[in-house]
Amino acid sequence: MASSLMGCQLPLSLQKILRLSATGCRFSSKAAPKTQVEFEYDGPSMKTTVPGPRSQELTKQLGGIQNVAAVNFFCNYEESRGNYLVDVDGNRMLDVYTQISSIPIGYNHPALHKVITNPSNMSAFVNRPALGILPPESFPDKLTESLLSVAPSGMSRVQTMACGSCSNENAYKAIFIWYRNKERGHNLPSEQELSSCMINKGPGCPELSILSFMGGFHGRTMGCLATTHSKSIHKLDVPTFDWPIAHFPKLQYPLEQFTRENAAEEARCLEEVEDLMVKWRQKGKPVAGIVVEPIQAEGGDNHASADFFRSLRNIARKHGSAFLVDEVQTGGGATGKFWAHEHWGLDDPGDIVSFSKKLLTGGFFHKFEFQADQPYRIFNTWMGDPTKNLFLCEVLDVIRRENLLDEVTRSGKTLLNGLCELQTQFPGVLSRARGQGTFCAIDVCDETTRNKILIAARNKGILLGGCGDRSIRFRPSLVFKEYHVHLFLNIFNDVMTQFK
Amino acid sequence: MASSLMGCQLPLSLQKILRLSATGCRFSSKAAPKTQVEFEYDGPSMKTTVPGPRSQELTKQLGGIQNVAAVNFFCNYEESRGNYLVDVDGNRMLDVYTQISSIPIGYNHPALHKVITNPSNMSAFVNRPALGILPPESFPDKLTESLLSVAPSGMSRVQTMACGSCSNENAYKAIFIWYRNKERGHNLPSEQELSSCMINKGPGCPELSILSFMGGFHGRTMGCLATTHSKSIHKLDVPTFDWPIAHFPKLQYPLEQFTRENAAEEARCLEEVEDLMVKWRQKGKPVAGIVVEPIQAEGGDNHASADFFRSLRNIARKHGSAFLVDEVQTGGGATGKFWAHEHWGLDDPGDIVSFSKKLLTGGFFHKFEFQADQPYRIFNTWMGDPTKNLFLCEVLDVIRRENLLDEVTRSGKTLLNGLCELQTQFPGVLSRARGQGTFCAIDVCDETTRNKILIAARNKGILLGGCGDRSIRFRPSLVFKEYHVHLFLNIFNDVMTQFK
Repeated sequence: MASSLMGCQLPLSLQKILRLSATGCRFSSKAAPKTQVEFEYDGPSMKTTVPGPRSQELTKQLGGIQNVAAVNFFCNYEESRGNYLVDVDGNRMLDVYTQISSIPIGYNHPALHKVITNPSNMSAFVNRPALGILPPESFPDKLTESLLSVAPSGMSRVQTMACGSCSNENAYKAIFIWYRNKERGHNLPSEQELSSCMINKGPGCPELSILSFMGGFHGRTMGCLATTHSKSIHKLDVPTFDWPIAHFPKLQYPLEQFTRENAAEEARCLEEVEDLMVKWRQKGKPVAGIVVEPIQAEGGDNHASADFFRSLRNIARKHGSAFLVDEVQTGGGATGKFWAHEHWGLDDPGDIVSFSKKLLTGGFFHKFEFQADQPYRIFNTWMGDPTKNLFLCEVLDVIRRENLLDEVTRSGKTLLNGLCELQTQFPGVLSRARGQGTFCAIDVCDETTRNKILIAARNKGILLGGCGDRSIRFRPSLVFKEYHVHLFLNIFNDVMTQFK
Repeated sequence: MASSLMGCQLPLSLQKILRLSATGCRFSSKAAPKTQVEFEYDGPSMKTTVPGPRSQELTKQLGGIQNVAAVNFFCNYEESRGNYLVDVDGNRMLDVYTQISSIPIGYNHPALHKVITNPSNMSAFVNRPALGILPPESFPDKLTESLLSVAPSGMSRVQTMACGSCSNENAYKAIFIWYRNKERGHNLPSEQELSSCMINKGPGCPELSILSFMGGFHGRTMGCLATTHSKSIHKLDVPTFDWPIAHFPKLQYPLEQFTRENAAEEARCLEEVEDLMVKWRQKGKPVAGIVVEPIQAEGGDNHASADFFRSLRNIARKHGSAFLVDEVQTGGGATGKFWAHEHWGLDDPGDIVSFSKKLLTGGFFHKFEFQADQPYRIFNTWMGDPTKNLFLCEVLDVIRRENLLDEVTRSGKTLLNGLCELQTQFPGVLSRARGQGTFCAIDVCDETTRNKILIAARNKGILLGGCGDRSIRFRPSLVFKEYHVHLFLNIFNDVMTQFK
């Protein structure tokens, strides 16, 4: 089958795939409409426990080359389709984690295959340009067609980067440059600044800071890591900056029962932000920018209200600090809007929005005033990869054509309702069901049980991920329909009976 | 032509290309053998000054989206071949800069086209995995076939990353983790370490440092940037670390005339390194690692002797510090050996070697003891891109099959001899011709003249890059033959007559 799929007769022969997908379904929900994802299978199919023997063999082989302690199993990407990830032992799993939330429209989407088989795209793949100095002819049009077509409110400019960490690192640099230019009244830097920065000293290398939140995750390179506070293992042993860290609200669920408590919690955190900004200014390390995720993902799917973010945005403005919204994990549609910050209802949601993962390319949108005043300040050899823009054009087209944001909203409601029912059913084990769109999570009583549930679910054909210390995060692709939600809920319910 | 090249009848129809390449040659060297690069043109062909009208139009368009002050011109990558980069105005230039030294075997090499048209590679392009958790079946084999087949002496392990900066950032982290594990006697971290690092404090976030050199360039993310000291504009306004910076030898040329002075200069720099290591230990910020380029590229193509590097490597060992060789620009064959550090003749050249650019993927090789002890410490979502490994397999195959390292050595000798002749001919303008393989450079009397030469050469069909404050760097691909050297020298000589 792989060979027929991969051959020159592409795009996919849908009939053949549909014929094959009729086999191997073990679970089905009477309540669910038939799948609308035409090129995929219609259910999980498990042949071994996971990792199976072939995965174990390959893990051993790869272990001779690099650390494999995080490897779950090896995949057969050729055979994977839509919401289904197939492993090298022939197990087919419903993927509710999607490569750490980075597969936008499922595996082997025919629209993406077209990008590869289109002869006019060939040279983009084999001649990777230094985009900052020698861009290809199609680059401005492709940026317009892809990223600019989803530019956040108030942001007309975008810079691509290779990954999420590079996106945030460069966004921080853009913030520092903007802040210092403001401080020096947009005059040229002094000789002393130019010479001192060469030897890592002030005033050229200033003592500025970025304010971040406990539980936040913004990447693992050293600038980003100074603002990441989700798990100690990410940060241990790495030198860092003395930058302020505020508490992120810890909301109590169900929200409607804790309106007052949650409002007080958010007010407390906002007050701390202001206190820290004053304190760090007094310390001589003013806060040039605030960075925040609309939903703290890696740190445990911590939500806050739209009011909280609106107030935070105002605090940044009031103190003359930039407001950077990190949408690396939340961006791309999973919350039911293309950007999670759209749920805040602001015309001016931020100064910079960073992205990666589902956008396939890293990068950041920004207001005009955050563009560096000179060339080579925000720069590197590749500055992203224009082939990723080609794929993104197709992804956005599919999202629009198939109204995937509406689908996500619908699937998300069903998913969250189902999770709420499950936590009623398993009150000692599950709690705090929460989410926006399909970007959902639920807490487990403790970390050990959480990890056991993840493995048990995997062996039943459901691939999930953890986050925080005891949460499960649901990160399906945008083609995860109500049909798949029911399929998932049925199996997950089955899994949970072992943990009652 | 582009459409026939890109069609399904790929790989390239060499006959058609060869037929076309017979036109448009303006320069030729009687002394040069006929080109051995079969799929390319046989000379530059200029139609407009560069940037031409179409490039200017596109620059204006892109200027509405991002900073374009560094854009040279827009390219027609479809029509580019081998050593020739074609722009959107139909100008065809001999490319001696190759996308900041990142095109290994020329444009549109038929071997790379094969990767795209091979149906079994399709799914690798459209399903980008989270390599650290869900690698594809072929991943260990492809790593073995590509990167491990060129592993530096003593290094059996490799970690891929998306770009050069991420490679060095993660190499630094690997060094810090290694150093602290050593310090704590490989015991588990304390509770205090685990909790303090979450709030950016010691002992969990230790005060460790990386020693770097003035003139060095190791990337632009904040960890890397703390070790980059090539140009102030890269560093201005960005907060940084108090890490030690030693002087890199400033050799006098021609080397044979300054043996004693250069030896003294290198000894002075080595002594400074040791002094700084002692001083920073006393400051409570011990040097966990030394990072150095075998040839400081961005900083001005500064060379040092093999003796210097051998001594430096010993100093690192003596002080219990890691030795990181940054081969992002020097790696991949341009010096006539696959790794520039091979010229040092050491069995134990370093603990870590980082790479990117010509290797098409970023990453770093390392000794076993530099592998993080736990998962998720050296980690990110994508951990590189396995499609780049597919291209790299082909590149390495071409390098071996066509003995490109020998070719580079041969072309490099001719190039350096030619540059030495040119500096004799233009003594007031050119000086300090230097190089290893085709990784050559020459100095110009001042920055303004250097920049004028670059533009004049470009308008004559030669694409070059600057480095340092007044050097020209030559960074052809590995298929730059003696034929191309002569072609280049003829035109460059012609250009230089304007600057006499």
